[in-house]
Amino acid sequence: MSLLEKTLAAITPVDWASAQGVQTLLDNKTKPLGSLGRLEELACRLAAIRRSTRLSPPVKAVVVMAGDHGVAGPDGPGVSAFPQAVTAQMVLNFVAGGAAINVLAAQAGARVVVVDMGVKGPLDHPGVINRKFAPGTQDFTTGPAMSRDQAVAALEAGIQLAGDLADQGISLLAMGEMGIGNTTSSAALAAGFLKMAPSEVTGRGTGVDDAGLARKLAAITAALKANGPLTGDPVDTLAKLGGFEIAGLAGLVLGGAARNIPVVVDGFITAAAALTAVRLAPHAVDCLIPSHASVEKGHGRIMEALGLTPLFDMHMRLGEGSGAALAMMWVDAAVAILNDMATFDSAGVSGAEG
Amino acid sequence: MSLLEKTLAAITPVDWASAQGVQTLLDNKTKPLGSLGRLEELACRLAAIRRSTRLSPPVKAVVVMAGDHGVAGPDGPGVSAFPQAVTAQMVLNFVAGGAAINVLAAQAGARVVVVDMGVKGPLDHPGVINRKFAPGTQDFTTGPAMSRDQAVAALEAGIQLAGDLADQGISLLAMGEMGIGNTTSSAALAAGFLKMAPSEVTGRGTGVDDAGLARKLAAITAALKANGPLTGDPVDTLAKLGGFEIAGLAGLVLGGAARNIPVVVDGFITAAAALTAVRLAPHAVDCLIPSHASVEKGHGRIMEALGLTPLFDMHMRLGEGSGAALAMMWVDAAVAILNDMATFDSAGVSGAEG
Repeated sequence: MSLLEKTLAAITPVDWASAQGVQTLLDNKTKPLGSLGRLEELACRLAAIRRSTRLSPPVKAVVVMAGDHGVAGPDGPGVSAFPQAVTAQMVLNFVAGGAAINVLAAQAGARVVVVDMGVKGPLDHPGVINRKFAPGTQDFTTGPAMSRDQAVAALEAGIQLAGDLADQGISLLAMGEMGIGNTTSSAALAAGFLKMAPSEVTGRGTGVDDAGLARKLAAITAALKANGPLTGDPVDTLAKLGGFEIAGLAGLVLGGAARNIPVVVDGFITAAAALTAVRLAPHAVDCLIPSHASVEKGHGRIMEALGLTPLFDMHMRLGEGSGAALAMMWVDAAVAILNDMATFDSAGVSGAEG
Repeated sequence: MSLLEKTLAAITPVDWASAQGVQTLLDNKTKPLGSLGRLEELACRLAAIRRSTRLSPPVKAVVVMAGDHGVAGPDGPGVSAFPQAVTAQMVLNFVAGGAAINVLAAQAGARVVVVDMGVKGPLDHPGVINRKFAPGTQDFTTGPAMSRDQAVAALEAGIQLAGDLADQGISLLAMGEMGIGNTTSSAALAAGFLKMAPSEVTGRGTGVDDAGLARKLAAITAALKANGPLTGDPVDTLAKLGGFEIAGLAGLVLGGAARNIPVVVDGFITAAAALTAVRLAPHAVDCLIPSHASVEKGHGRIMEALGLTPLFDMHMRLGEGSGAALAMMWVDAAVAILNDMATFDSAGVSGAEG
């Protein structure tokens, strides 16, 4: 069996009995029943994923995968407000520690793991994990973005990385990404998987104007036509419409799920990757922790399809894992509530009457 | 002039030019314009309150004020799911470190300051600041909860404490509270200040059933009748319908605003205190940072009246400052974004095209 096949077979249902066990523990803490709302839900969800009512403080990593997109190239239709060179420049910014995700991950006490899944230029830097399968995807408006073999290799790189991080003691993963043009690719994936019109799932990305939005929509429509009809096979859809970083992140979800590690979803691109993973392994959905509601309209459509309700809406649309990093702080808080709060008995506090 | 009068006179408009200055700084950071959404708003708001574009990492304290309410006494109508003794028991839980707010404040890196503003029993503990003006309020269904002098003294105790904490270097305050019966008092204040029917602002508090909710509504209606008609003087309304901890927290807002310190609002009781403060000093509203949307319906009414949009809704209804502590993590994050992110120039990243 291939690594992908073995991983898909290893993804089993989470343990809801552990979630119930944690809820019972929380119900004995010195607070009105259920009064910490979704913070309690988070603790229960974590217990289900970890298959245990005993939760250690999470050891956290934000995995930022980067890749370029043929459709965003200099000869392409112009789908981003930023030039393609920004992908590589931002990867160097990540390893230098100057990007938003560096700052927010530091606040959350999380490592930032930077992976070149397919950035256009050379990126020889010891801080970048090199998993470059090609210098960017092909322009998907005229044919597949990746070959099927490339998509599988990128998925398996993500699976492998999740396993490596699990071996290093990481117990909470967040998904982050960088790739000029990748909201275009994500919208195409969302349209393909959810059978929705491009206009239902396409937003302004880094901030294109009306003309740019029209170009994005035209590019996505062309990509769906050039690559259609889709077979319904998730790997095929991913290869045709996705990107290397999206495939890698889908693999990260699969690898995390196979190792009982919760994976925090960020914005639109990571949601498209999570959706891809769940189409490959339906039980993987229970290992996902939502974070924010992105400004990108397609994000909401994917979250609905996954049955996930975002924890907050801070009107963010940056990507990189920025919203997921904010949510990680609350996952920590949920675990601390379980571990550190007194019970009614231990604190000598009277319970509810009647 | 009294301390209250001096403080009200010292509360001046915040500096929106500093907010604009911070927005300009954020616009040069390596991210699409405005893409951090309300996190950017938070940094700007902090700059306005601090009257500076230079923000240090906040030094944080959650001030938890406790008080008892005559209406929740053993001979009262029964407005809470918990017996009155829980107020004192929870104060001891706070100083022992076992309550939700201890855990969440620790996660946020904030001190917890515990104040007895009027708890029923004796609370001699070195960890509790003693500002007990009476062993609980009078039953407000038959007359004023506090005398005017008591209300002013409690307001001034809050002002004084904010000043003391400012002198100790605290630069970010959060409001927290404990007091069996205080959602009943807060609903009465909301109804009084906002001229709304009790049913529009009354919820289930710690979790009363339908009969308990009916008793709360009847108690609030009786309190408004016994103490009406209200004169429109905020101190008078506070004295008649409020509580010692609510008055102290209103004072904390005033004292914070007078010292250019942002104050994070928590749930319903702290919102009622914030509303009281803003009725006394309208400019104080600009020093308030919202946190969560409480499950208590009156919370939303007060936030609307204050023009504040909560940052998140985690379905929480615990009080103590729990939601405010979660928000404090994000205030830290907003300041770190301002201070620690690279600019397009410094990181060598290309800006948006066109």
